[in-house]
Amino acid sequence: MIRPGADDWRFKLHEIIYETHTPAGKAFDVSLLIAIFASITVVMLDSVASIHQHYGGLFHITEWVFTVLFTIEYILRLICIRRPIKYVISPLGIIDFVALIPSYLSILFIGAQSLLVFRALRLLRVFRIFKLGQFLTEINFLTQALKNSFRKISIFLLTVLTITVILGSIMYLVEQRENGFSNIPESIYWAIVTITTVGYGDISPITPLGKFVASVVMLIGYAIIAVPTGILTHDIAIAASKKKELQEACPSCGREGHESDAMFCKFCGSSLFR
Amino acid sequence: MIRPGADDWRFKLHEIIYETHTPAGKAFDVSLLIAIFASITVVMLDSVASIHQHYGGLFHITEWVFTVLFTIEYILRLICIRRPIKYVISPLGIIDFVALIPSYLSILFIGAQSLLVFRALRLLRVFRIFKLGQFLTEINFLTQALKNSFRKISIFLLTVLTITVILGSIMYLVEQRENGFSNIPESIYWAIVTITTVGYGDISPITPLGKFVASVVMLIGYAIIAVPTGILTHDIAIAASKKKELQEACPSCGREGHESDAMFCKFCGSSLFR
Amino acid sequence: MIRPGADDWRFKLHEIIYETHTPAGKAFDVSLLIAIFASITVVMLDSVASIHQHYGGLFHITEWVFTVLFTIEYILRLICIRRPIKYVISPLGIIDFVALIPSYLSILFIGAQSLLVFRALRLLRVFRIFKLGQFLTEINFLTQALKNSFRKISIFLLTVLTITVILGSIMYLVEQRENGFSNIPESIYWAIVTITTVGYGDISPITPLGKFVASVVMLIGYAIIAVPTGILTHDIAIAASKKKELQEACPSCGREGHESDAMFCKFCGSSLFR
Amino acid sequence: MIRPGADDWRFKLHEIIYETHTPAGKAFDVSLLIAIFASITVVMLDSVASIHQHYGGLFHITEWVFTVLFTIEYILRLICIRRPIKYVISPLGIIDFVALIPSYLSILFIGAQSLLVFRALRLLRVFRIFKLGQFLTEINFLTQALKNSFRKISIFLLTVLTITVILGSIMYLVEQRENGFSNIPESIYWAIVTITTVGYGDISPITPLGKFVASVVMLIGYAIIAVPTGILTHDIAIAASKKKELQEACPSCGREGHESDAMFCKFCGSSLFR
Repeated sequence: MIRPGADDWRFKLHEIIYETHTPAGKAFDVSLLIAIFASITVVMLDSVASIHQHYGGLFHITEWVFTVLFTIEYILRLICIRRPIKYVISPLGIIDFVALIPSYLSILFIGAQSLLVFRALRLLRVFRIFKLGQFLTEINFLTQALKNSFRKISIFLLTVLTITVILGSIMYLVEQRENGFSNIPESIYWAIVTITTVGYGDISPITPLGKFVASVVMLIGYAIIAVPTGILTHDIAIAASKKKELQEACPSCGREGHESDAMFCKFCGSSLFR
Repeated sequence: MIRPGADDWRFKLHEIIYETHTPAGKAFDVSLLIAIFASITVVMLDSVASIHQHYGGLFHITEWVFTVLFTIEYILRLICIRRPIKYVISPLGIIDFVALIPSYLSILFIGAQSLLVFRALRLLRVFRIFKLGQFLTEINFLTQALKNSFRKISIFLLTVLTITVILGSIMYLVEQRENGFSNIPESIYWAIVTITTVGYGDISPITPLGKFVASVVMLIGYAIIAVPTGILTHDIAIAASKKKELQEACPSCGREGHESDAMFCKFCGSSLFR
Repeated sequence: MIRPGADDWRFKLHEIIYETHTPAGKAFDVSLLIAIFASITVVMLDSVASIHQHYGGLFHITEWVFTVLFTIEYILRLICIRRPIKYVISPLGIIDFVALIPSYLSILFIGAQSLLVFRALRLLRVFRIFKLGQFLTEINFLTQALKNSFRKISIFLLTVLTITVILGSIMYLVEQRENGFSNIPESIYWAIVTITTVGYGDISPITPLGKFVASVVMLIGYAIIAVPTGILTHDIAIAASKKKELQEACPSCGREGHESDAMFCKFCGSSLFR
Repeated sequence: MIRPGADDWRFKLHEIIYETHTPAGKAFDVSLLIAIFASITVVMLDSVASIHQHYGGLFHITEWVFTVLFTIEYILRLICIRRPIKYVISPLGIIDFVALIPSYLSILFIGAQSLLVFRALRLLRVFRIFKLGQFLTEINFLTQALKNSFRKISIFLLTVLTITVILGSIMYLVEQRENGFSNIPESIYWAIVTITTVGYGDISPITPLGKFVASVVMLIGYAIIAVPTGILTHDIAIAASKKKELQEACPSCGREGHESDAMFCKFCGSSLFR
C-alpha cells in the first residue's frame, strides 16, 4: 500500500501516469501519444527500402532513443502502481512490454528488430484521449451498443464462416482444382473474399458452373450484409433510449427510467406531472 | 411406438442422441461437433497437395475411422427414433447420409472420395450448440426477424437479378463481344460482380461507353444496398418490440406497452402485480 | 369507346390481356412470363459462340416463333384497348415494340439481330406477378418507402458524383497521367469504382501519394455508404408506422390515423376506448 | 457600408450574385452553374489525348473565354460585397480564386495549365441549387443528421485507421516483405483496401498465413461496416423526430408529441387550435 508521506512522490507519479484529471496527467498522456506516433512513424519509414538507405543510421539511433524512453516509462509504471504484477499481465501491460523487447532482442539476434512493428499495438492507447474530454459520452454510448450486439454479431460471423466452408468446398469440386482453387482452404479463402464483397480477383471462377456458384455467393453476401447493420442499428437505438431515460425522474420516489409518454411513476404509482 | 421396459435403452439412446437437456445429451452433441470439425479438417488438409504427399496415408486411415464412427451414429439414429423414414428424408438426415457415402463409393469408383467435401455440410449442426445455452434468445430473435424479412428480401433479389440481366445484355452490345464480354451470360455474371460491389476485375469495361455504363451499374449497386438493410433493420425492431410486449399488460386498465422494470401502470397508476 | 354487344369480344380480350383478376387473365400473364423467359434464354444461349455453332439454326427458328407470338400479342393489345396511342407511347408499350423490331430489321440490315438483347427489358413485366397475389402488401410498402427516399437518395448520389469528379481530377494530377490515370474521365471512372467499394483493380494507384489519396477515397466511401441506408431505414419505418395507423379507427367519427398510445380521437376529441 | 442611392447598383448586383429569391438571382445562379459545368467538361475532354489532338486549339480558346468570364464574376463579387476580404478568405472565395489562376499562371510557366483541374472544385456550388427550391427541407434534414453523427463517425474512422495500422504491420511481418507487402505504409494501404471491402487485388496475400490474416481483416471489415450505418440511421431518426416535435404542443395540458394532422389533444381530448 502507498502510505502518504514517504511514498508521496509515488502517489503523485501514479496520478500523472495513470490518471487524466490533473494538468500534469493530461500533459503526460498527450506527450506519450506523440512519442508513440513518432516511434511508429520511424518504424514505418525505416521499412521503406529507399528511405532506409539514406536515413537508416539516423532511424537506428531514434529507435533506441524511443526504446530507452519507453523503458523508463515502463519502469515508472511498475514503481508507482500498488500491484505491479496486475499491470504486467494486463493487456496494455503486455503490449507495452512487447513494444520494448524487439530492440533489446536485436542485440542478441539479427533480424529481431523487424518485430518492432508490434510497437503499432501501442496505438491502442489513442483511445485514452477520449477520456480527456468531450468524446466520453459518445464513446460510452457506442461501446454499450457494441457490447449488446457482440453475441448476435458473433452468431452472424459463425454463420458466415459455416457458409463459406460449405460454399468453398463445393467450389473446389466445381472448378476442378484448377484456376486457383487448388485446395479446400484456398477455396474457402476465395469464398470469404467473395461473400464479404472484397473481391481481389487473385482467384476467380473460370468455368460457367463456377461463375454461377460465384454469383450465388455474391448475392448471398450482398443480402446478408444487412444482418449486422440491422442488429447494430437496433442496439444503438436501445442504448440511446436508455440514455434518454436517465434524464427523467419521478418527483415522489426519485426513481428514473420512465418512458416519454408515462403520466404516472411506474415504480410508486404517483403522478409524474411533467 | 417405444414402450417403456423392453425398449427402455432405445428411449435412453433417443434422449442422448436427439435431446440436449441431459448431461449425456450435451456431451454427445459436443463430441459429435468435435468429430465433425476434426473430419472436415482432415478432408481440408488432405486437399493440399504438399500435405497430402507426406500424410496421405494417415489421412486415408483417419477418414475411414470417421466414416465408421459416423456410420455407427447414423445406424443408432435410425434405431432409436420412432419413425426412421422421417429422419432419412429430413434435410439433416440427407446431409448425414451424403457425408457417409463418398467413402464407400470410393471402393467402387476411383475419385469418388473427392465428394467427401460434402462432409462440410455437417457443419450446419453447429447451430445445435445454441440450443445448449444462453444463445437461445438471440437466435430465436434473429430467426424471427429474418423470417419476416424473407419475402421482402426475395423481391429485392429478384429485382436485382432483373436489373443485372438487362444491364448485362446492354453491356454485351456496348463492349462489342470483346474484352471478356464474349456472351450474354458472361455479361450478366459481370453485372452481378459489379452491382454487388465485389469487383473481381477479371472482366472490366475497356471502351469509354462501357465504363460509363459500368459507373451507372456501380452507383445503382451502391444506392440499392440500402434496401435489404433498411428492410431487415425495420423487421429487427418489430421483432424486438413484439418480444417486449408479450411480457406485459395492466390488470386494471388493460393497457399494454409497459417496460420490463415497471411495477405500476404508467397510464392509470394502479399496481401491475407482476 | 367499347360498346357492349358488338365489341363484347374486345371487352373480354381486354380483361384477359390487361387484367389479372380472372382465371383467364392470370393464365395469360403466367404464359406470357414463361414465353418472355424462354425467348430471353434463347437469345442468351445464342450469344455463346460454342452453343451457337451447334444450335444456331434451331435458335434462329425459335427466335422467329417468339417474334411472331409477341407480334400477335402486340396487335391484340392495340385492338382491345380504348386508346391504342396511349399504350404505344407508354414505357411498357415502347419496351414491347423495341422487343419486336430487331427480328424484322434483321431482314433488311445484317447484324440488327444483335439488338434482340433489348428483349431482356420485357423481363420488367415480372413485377406484374406480384399483382397476382400475396406479395401485393410488401411491394406497395417497399415502393412507398422508396418513393419517399427518392429525393434524398438523389441528393446523396449527386453529392457522391461531385466528390468523384473532384477526387478524380486531383488523382489525375497526382498520378501524372500514367498508371491508367491517362485522362480525367478515366480518373473519375476510377474514383467511382473506388468510392462504391467495387474495386476492379484495372486502374489502381502506383505512387505513394496516389495510394494516400486512394485511401482517403476508400474511407470516405466506407463512411458514406451509411447515408442511403440510414435514409431508407428511416423511410421504411415511417411507411410501416403509416400502414399501422390504418388499422385503428375512432368509434365516434370513424377517422383513422391515431397513434398507438392515443386515448382520445385527435379529430373529434371523443374517447377512443380501445 | 452600402448607402442607398449612389451605390444602388451595387445593392442590386449583390442581390443578383449572392441572393436567390429574385428572378434575376435565380437566373444568375443557373447560368453560373451551366458555365461551371461547361468549363469542367472542356477541361475533361482536353485531358483525353485523342480529343486534344483534334480540338486542342478550340479548347484553348474556350478555356480563356471561361477564365475571362469567371474573372469578371470574381471582380463583381468583390465590388458588390461590403467586406471583400471576408469573401476572399472564405472557402468558396478561395475555390473561386484557385479556379482562375491556372490560366494566368500558364502564361508564365509551361504546364501550369494542368492545374485547371481544380476548377472541378467549383462544382461544389451545385449545392446552391437546393436553395432554389423544394430540396431545402431534405438537405437541412440530412445536414442536421450528418452533423450529429460527425463526432461518432470520426471516432469510428480513427478506430478503423488504428486497426489498419496494426493489421498492416502484422501483415508486413507475415508476408515477409515480398508479394507487394514491401514496406509498412504499403501494407497499411493494403489493409485499408481490404477492410473497406474495395479489394483492388493489386496487392494480395500469397502465403497461407497471409491469407488467413487477410480473411480476418475482411470479416472485421464486413462486420464493422454496420457501425457508421447504425450511427447515422439513429441520428436520422432523431433529426426526424425533432423536426416533428417542433410543430406541436397542446394548449390545455401542455403535452407534446401530436402528429401533424391532429386537431384534438390525444391525451386530454381538448382542441389543439392550431
